[in-house]
Amino acid sequence: MNEITIHAPATVANMVCGFDVLGLCLTEPYDIMKVRLIDQRQVIIHTTDGFPLPMNPALNTAGAPLLEMLAALNQDLGFEVFITKQIKPGSGIGSSAASAAGAVVAANELLGNIFSKEELVRFAMFGEKVASGVKHADNIAPCIYGGVTLIRSIFPLDIIPISSPPLFVTVLHPQIEVRTSDAREILRKEVLLKDAIRQWGNIAGLVAGLMMGDYDLIGRSLEDVIIEPVRSILIPGFDVIKSECKKAGAIGGGISGSGPSIFMLSRDEITAHAMASVMKSVYDQIRVSYHIYVTTVNTQGVSIQHRA
Amino acid sequence: MNEITIHAPATVANMVCGFDVLGLCLTEPYDIMKVRLIDQRQVIIHTTDGFPLPMNPALNTAGAPLLEMLAALNQDLGFEVFITKQIKPGSGIGSSAASAAGAVVAANELLGNIFSKEELVRFAMFGEKVASGVKHADNIAPCIYGGVTLIRSIFPLDIIPISSPPLFVTVLHPQIEVRTSDAREILRKEVLLKDAIRQWGNIAGLVAGLMMGDYDLIGRSLEDVIIEPVRSILIPGFDVIKSECKKAGAIGGGISGSGPSIFMLSRDEITAHAMASVMKSVYDQIRVSYHIYVTTVNTQGVSIQHRA
Repeated sequence: MNEITIHAPATVANMVCGFDVLGLCLTEPYDIMKVRLIDQRQVIIHTTDGFPLPMNPALNTAGAPLLEMLAALNQDLGFEVFITKQIKPGSGIGSSAASAAGAVVAANELLGNIFSKEELVRFAMFGEKVASGVKHADNIAPCIYGGVTLIRSIFPLDIIPISSPPLFVTVLHPQIEVRTSDAREILRKEVLLKDAIRQWGNIAGLVAGLMMGDYDLIGRSLEDVIIEPVRSILIPGFDVIKSECKKAGAIGGGISGSGPSIFMLSRDEITAHAMASVMKSVYDQIRVSYHIYVTTVNTQGVSIQHRA
Repeated sequence: MNEITIHAPATVANMVCGFDVLGLCLTEPYDIMKVRLIDQRQVIIHTTDGFPLPMNPALNTAGAPLLEMLAALNQDLGFEVFITKQIKPGSGIGSSAASAAGAVVAANELLGNIFSKEELVRFAMFGEKVASGVKHADNIAPCIYGGVTLIRSIFPLDIIPISSPPLFVTVLHPQIEVRTSDAREILRKEVLLKDAIRQWGNIAGLVAGLMMGDYDLIGRSLEDVIIEPVRSILIPGFDVIKSECKKAGAIGGGISGSGPSIFMLSRDEITAHAMASVMKSVYDQIRVSYHIYVTTVNTQGVSIQHRA
């Protein structure tokens, strides 16, 4: 085997009250990536998607992690990568993480799975560094592990997969760009202790609710008193969508990653489609173009489609 | 039945990374309380322990909750309460909470269990208000529910029992007083966002570790970058005890509630006694008197000993 095709799925970072530490893997959308083992010590990037991303592997979110992997290997081999991005960059559903995670999972398969998932996350974080200047793993980890993951700590890296009941996810992607770096800059460096306490009560409740399969507790815990009040200003129609979706039966939801995408969790597929209708009707009125996904939690993460 | 005797156990609030939201019930020490149903609409407090606590029921931590209960009942009955405190006030292991929780659980038994545990917590919080000026439930809830409890929110009250593996607890109670109100005042009102993120990663890890029975994860998560660095200054020998206990095999631990007590968790009884030796040797050197308890997590909470 010297060529492999994978799907690298979108992810929802933060999950409302878990800023920088929680993430959720989606079934759709996903990038399609083909990775080929070559015998020169280099990484070559090809794209077929038309997005204006850097082709220099050191500056590319799929390339940088593979260069790190090659440095760790110290062998005469390299990778040629063909990327068909379907997750639009800047969408807030882990576009850069999908490229990085997909590349390292595919490469590891070609090498006979010599690296652990945790090691793959370490390599893939170099892609996030290229994309946003910060090594974060709240999209990378769920993309590689599947399901819901907790990044208890980045230094040292400590990833904990969190079990969850079946969840349907409706994602609205407004076709506006919010840069991760801008979304970070508008946050205050200090927060009120009382708000931080409320937030850690909520994340503890969310983790307990997910592990117990208690949808009501999950819903009560999906509250963010620190980040959402600031960032939601950048997202047209956010408050209306959130309150209307709650009325229409959503478990809860909020900003996906640093936005502009909004996600809502539902117990069943019918409710998830009702969320899509709510989102559609709000966005048709405010005349911003958008894309909506109705999908599920993906417990597998990056999936292998084809080996050759 | 018009008289009941109960044991109201000590509790460890905060559990290091869960300031104001997590609490743990201990098997020992406990207060002994006898509550008698009387036919006058009043609460009478008797003590046999010699602690200089207010006998006016409105100012007593057992009395205030019972007055609230009487107000809710609107019947011609009252309670006579006999308290033998064994949990020293100001110890940081939930002395006031034990009186409040014990009183309401006993009274509720005498009334035929007409109130839910959550309602009992609501009544008992009036005792905490009397004791420290703040209605908090992180000692009350574990005392009433047993085990580990999460107070996701106080307003509205949302209590979530968290399952845990068997845990042994070693508690050092230095015989110095740290007033809860003083221990609160030295805290900063604002915290760094990056520290808050680290803290909510840890509490999420702690809840996951408890529910999965993963002792290593519990240990890694027992880290407090916000409260402990400030409050531990008030506790002689804190840093030495913590590092020596970790070396001697503790899962982890820290300040119990607002101090001055220090608690350490262990996987087994032998290690829990080794913790006691470490604590003893440190405190014998610094010449502060102390008391040490080697106990377990109490999954029952307030327990009924005798009915008459």
